[in-house]
Amino acid sequence: MSDTAVRSSTPAKSKRTPAGGAPTAAHSAAEASEPRIEIDAVTDLLLGTWADTRREAREMIKDPAFWRIEGQPMAEHRERVLEQMHLLVPHGASRRAIPKEYGGEGNNGANIAGFQELVLADPSLQIKSGVQWGLFGSAVLQLGTKKHHDKWLRDIVDLTIPGAFAMTETGHGSDVAAIGTTATYDVETEEFVIHTPFRGAWKDYLGNAAVHGKAATVFAQLITGGVNYGVHCFFVPIRDDEGSFMPGVGGEDDGVKGGLNGIDNGRLHFDQVRVPRENLLNRYGDVAADGSYSSEISSPGRRFFTMLGALVQGRVSLDGAATTGTALSLYIALTYANQRRQFDSGSGTDEIVLLDYGKHQRRLLPLLAQNYAQFFANDELLQKFDGVFSGRNDTPEEREDLETLAAALKPLSTWNALDTIQEAREACGGSGFLGENRLVGLRQDLDVYVTFEGDNNVLLQLVGKRLLSDFAKQFKGADAAKLAKYAVGQTAGKVFHGAGLRQFGQSVADFGSTARSVEFGLRAEQQHELLAGRVEQMVSDVASALRPASKLSSKEAAEVFNSRQAELIEAARAHGELLQWEAFSDGVASVEDEGTAQVLTWLRDLFGLYLIEKHLAWYMINGRLSTQRAASVTRYIDRLCTRLRPHAQDLVDAYGFAPEHVRAPIASGAERARQDEAREHYRALAASGEAPVSEKSLKKK
Amino acid sequence: MSDTAVRSSTPAKSKRTPAGGAPTAAHSAAEASEPRIEIDAVTDLLLGTWADTRREAREMIKDPAFWRIEGQPMAEHRERVLEQMHLLVPHGASRRAIPKEYGGEGNNGANIAGFQELVLADPSLQIKSGVQWGLFGSAVLQLGTKKHHDKWLRDIVDLTIPGAFAMTETGHGSDVAAIGTTATYDVETEEFVIHTPFRGAWKDYLGNAAVHGKAATVFAQLITGGVNYGVHCFFVPIRDDEGSFMPGVGGEDDGVKGGLNGIDNGRLHFDQVRVPRENLLNRYGDVAADGSYSSEISSPGRRFFTMLGALVQGRVSLDGAATTGTALSLYIALTYANQRRQFDSGSGTDEIVLLDYGKHQRRLLPLLAQNYAQFFANDELLQKFDGVFSGRNDTPEEREDLETLAAALKPLSTWNALDTIQEAREACGGSGFLGENRLVGLRQDLDVYVTFEGDNNVLLQLVGKRLLSDFAKQFKGADAAKLAKYAVGQTAGKVFHGAGLRQFGQSVADFGSTARSVEFGLRAEQQHELLAGRVEQMVSDVASALRPASKLSSKEAAEVFNSRQAELIEAARAHGELLQWEAFSDGVASVEDEGTAQVLTWLRDLFGLYLIEKHLAWYMINGRLSTQRAASVTRYIDRLCTRLRPHAQDLVDAYGFAPEHVRAPIASGAERARQDEAREHYRALAASGEAPVSEKSLKKK
Repeated sequence: MSDTAVRSSTPAKSKRTPAGGAPTAAHSAAEASEPRIEIDAVTDLLLGTWADTRREAREMIKDPAFWRIEGQPMAEHRERVLEQMHLLVPHGASRRAIPKEYGGEGNNGANIAGFQELVLADPSLQIKSGVQWGLFGSAVLQLGTKKHHDKWLRDIVDLTIPGAFAMTETGHGSDVAAIGTTATYDVETEEFVIHTPFRGAWKDYLGNAAVHGKAATVFAQLITGGVNYGVHCFFVPIRDDEGSFMPGVGGEDDGVKGGLNGIDNGRLHFDQVRVPRENLLNRYGDVAADGSYSSEISSPGRRFFTMLGALVQGRVSLDGAATTGTALSLYIALTYANQRRQFDSGSGTDEIVLLDYGKHQRRLLPLLAQNYAQFFANDELLQKFDGVFSGRNDTPEEREDLETLAAALKPLSTWNALDTIQEAREACGGSGFLGENRLVGLRQDLDVYVTFEGDNNVLLQLVGKRLLSDFAKQFKGADAAKLAKYAVGQTAGKVFHGAGLRQFGQSVADFGSTARSVEFGLRAEQQHELLAGRVEQMVSDVASALRPASKLSSKEAAEVFNSRQAELIEAARAHGELLQWEAFSDGVASVEDEGTAQVLTWLRDLFGLYLIEKHLAWYMINGRLSTQRAASVTRYIDRLCTRLRPHAQDLVDAYGFAPEHVRAPIASGAERARQDEAREHYRALAASGEAPVSEKSLKKK
Repeated sequence: MSDTAVRSSTPAKSKRTPAGGAPTAAHSAAEASEPRIEIDAVTDLLLGTWADTRREAREMIKDPAFWRIEGQPMAEHRERVLEQMHLLVPHGASRRAIPKEYGGEGNNGANIAGFQELVLADPSLQIKSGVQWGLFGSAVLQLGTKKHHDKWLRDIVDLTIPGAFAMTETGHGSDVAAIGTTATYDVETEEFVIHTPFRGAWKDYLGNAAVHGKAATVFAQLITGGVNYGVHCFFVPIRDDEGSFMPGVGGEDDGVKGGLNGIDNGRLHFDQVRVPRENLLNRYGDVAADGSYSSEISSPGRRFFTMLGALVQGRVSLDGAATTGTALSLYIALTYANQRRQFDSGSGTDEIVLLDYGKHQRRLLPLLAQNYAQFFANDELLQKFDGVFSGRNDTPEEREDLETLAAALKPLSTWNALDTIQEAREACGGSGFLGENRLVGLRQDLDVYVTFEGDNNVLLQLVGKRLLSDFAKQFKGADAAKLAKYAVGQTAGKVFHGAGLRQFGQSVADFGSTARSVEFGLRAEQQHELLAGRVEQMVSDVASALRPASKLSSKEAAEVFNSRQAELIEAARAHGELLQWEAFSDGVASVEDEGTAQVLTWLRDLFGLYLIEKHLAWYMINGRLSTQRAASVTRYIDRLCTRLRPHAQDLVDAYGFAPEHVRAPIASGAERARQDEAREHYRALAASGEAPVSEKSLKKK
């Protein structure tokens, strides 16, 4: 968007004198003549490990053929997105994760990194691609074996077989283990019989199911020899070449949705549909011709979670797409806020740029800091994902960590996306509500990210349970002495924290000015101490509350757990926030340029303080912040906002979006041109001597 | 929705035994055999002063002709809504506020009450009606005089003249005083020349402007004799009978928006368009044939605000419509949460109803309490509005109070609407994202409510300024002694509050059980003390901070104000919350039935505690709640949620919606039917002896 090479080589020296005496801070880092970021270097940092692939994807979607047309009717939008997917194929975008022997690159990290950029073109394209290659294709790749790969992988990659991922049912979403669809092995014909026993077992909300899908990977209870071996996945043709349903298959269109209307979501049901035995995707469980079941994983529970875990990439990519979509909304709102003027200050002749208002800084800059944190956290998630799926670090522990990390980050980034896009839309007023400025469409499309691929609350509960079990492991086989020691530690900790961060330079700080003591008390190490301490204590509190449950009846135990459910989810959220903060801090630590490191450290501090402010009551109730120190958090945030205000444009320019990615007239400079035209009009009018005088000035005479 | 007569006369005695040992509270008040609400009586209470009109409106919109068709393309939707407006006319819905001499009822309160119910049919219909009769029509009625009423009122009422309300410009929204459009009087021809001097002065976002409008009430700077008398309103024909623009008039379509696409928003510009002198709506300012200006209000500032104030009804009706729309979303989500089952408890054979989850209660029930508060507050606002506009209480003070009340309540209820509808949509998972279940469409339509008819933050800032000026009045002419006394009072207050509510029975309570002491410390009077005290102190804190500003240069003063802007807005929000809480409390106090009073008191307590929890950090930092007492707030909320859970269905049934208002399949009982069918399937299968055994049970053998 800007010539950063020129900018970086000429650090501006002169302070700008704001016109009209408005209460303006400097509008840019150049004006502020401060250390400033190297925009291009920050772009590299944000694009992360697979920056090249992301740039490649962004270059590709500069082609208007990939752009969402706001307000396009559903039927046309669906066909347009299908066409866009066909365009992706020759660009190689559908084969990055495919093994080399099937013409792919076998590069899992790059694959997700590239796909998540599609959100800038049209979130429907991102998600429909995700359905085809990330879910349907991945089910065949990850849950199937060589025979399946040989048979279907190429056709899936080149879109000869568009497919649906038929897991969710009308009656069961998050609770996949309880789905009703059955796949009963018929030893006579060596076939599986796929069947929907009641309405609640219809497969539902499936992309590609309403119109385009020719096949589906159907999850069903595998029954053979009178035994239910739990949920497995089957490759089931659903439509013939003319687009008619195969015999026994039926369905419905889900119709208009809150967003993502470029995807043909629909329902499917099966009436005794027969598929060959070989259509069982048998990597983790198989049925022999004689009907005998075998699996390398003997525990049904572990087998189930291993199969689901193989499909974690959906969550990984949503975390990234939500982060990029959020960035776009911040780019639009902050660019506009730097141009749009409203109300004069009562003291001058000119109106004030929106971003000079204290409230406007407060509503947008912490969200910018949060979004930066998400970029760093997403890159770590992608690295872990790539490590596991490349086979480099494919251990059960790494898989479990990956799943926990994805389950912790995806809820935070998708919720943050909705909140941030909404704040951005409101910050742009009526023009933010126009489709052409993209914020409303973006929010509508991203809305469902918070409940699909794992409902956010359900995912956080999974994370919470993992935290509880890690916590419990510390005490496994612990003798009385160890437990006693722990209890003492707990108490000491509480007393210690009761004084409010005394351990970190508080006494030193108290000798300095207020400003200094605030910063001393809330520097990186204290931020970390506060954020990490909160996770530990919340988990420990829930664990303590649940401990008696082991002696209760299962009904009573369930009641105890239920009474702590909201708290456990909150602990998991705190864990995710900590991970984002740590990723941001590690990212900043890697920066060598002094100006960049300075500004990004302020931004990281803003994120840390923003998190601490959100949970300020908790910190005080739990004796980790004194009321005085708590009061200083808000003041420090205000100061950081003022300090970061001149860097706002640099920081959103560093997202590296081109005009073809932004496409919002209000962030194009049109607003500034209009303001200039209006000013010029009044200037000329005044110069002409024909300007009307105001009634007010008349009365003064 | 339910036979309340039967329910009320047969208070159930038997406790339900939850099937399957799930951790369920009672699902209904009948099961809980507790005091319960009289549903019909609560409906009366919620519908408020103009209940009859609201029932009439609800009856009318049972006709499917009024219903929004989800996903209807924009062009068709616009025509449908225009047709619906033509249907409103014979129902008398467009004439309630019109003076009797023009065939109306002269009933301002009933008019708004009836209109806000249209949100249940289609928010586009509510808002397009608001444009036609609430803005365009009201401008003629409130800003015009008899000659204008005689000439246009009947045609406006019966939709012969669809019109636009042309106030906002692309360059100026909230800052109406700064609009660029001019109306220059030409004494030669006795005409006003309406002119748009630059692009930023195009009228923008105007309903009825893109297609249907034949005229517009255009706000412009009135210039006569070389003097600008500020913003006045003019009646300007914009299209001929064939729908073509009049000479000199031009415009553009705003295109697709984030919602409300049944309204044809657009832009208008004027190139030296001449209208007769009589087209100035001259109630508050007039120009004689010779060009001399006269007004009964000599202060240009007061005149401007009086004119704007005459149009306050837009804000009043948005407060009501947002409240009713929010209620619809809660009805849908809570009804579904009472039917939908997901995950078994790990202890029984059946799955748990969503509303039995602690987290689900926590996410929805406080929002239900908040929505109830909004109903009571909106009725008070309507009463005040009716008092002023009927002439019964039409004093400058009452008008100012009305405007402040509207400016305080509209932001809260419209933001709450978005948050609540979103929470409701997420609580319904994927089905909440389907258009047919209405939550997404409702949220999209209501999105713009937070920034139009006064941007929420700008409105709250107005309220904040009013609070500051009221505060300052206490000290007007105060001598040093009085100020000193005040300062002492302040200090005493801080010390007093430092002990945390000791004044209200805390010592008594400390003798009782924890549970009792919690309640004693957070009863109605303490809730009020906390909520009111917060407003007082926040205003006083901002005032203290601003006091030195009077000695500063205007630039420095503006900077000081700017640094406190976010805080002032927060104080105004606290004020609005207090007003809602007080309205709710007064409403509950009017209830005679014991069961109803008991349950509504719990609900009011939940609202009060929810507000206090939101600002818990503030209460601790400012010494108004001890950390112990603060910790008990959250526990008390949890207990109230458990207590209210059996009443949830009664409380949403009391909204009085008929199936024709709800129209969401997931709240129709279809989910329960599906669950029953699934259970029956498994029961029959088990009975048949042909059910497969689980692999797990096999392994145990």
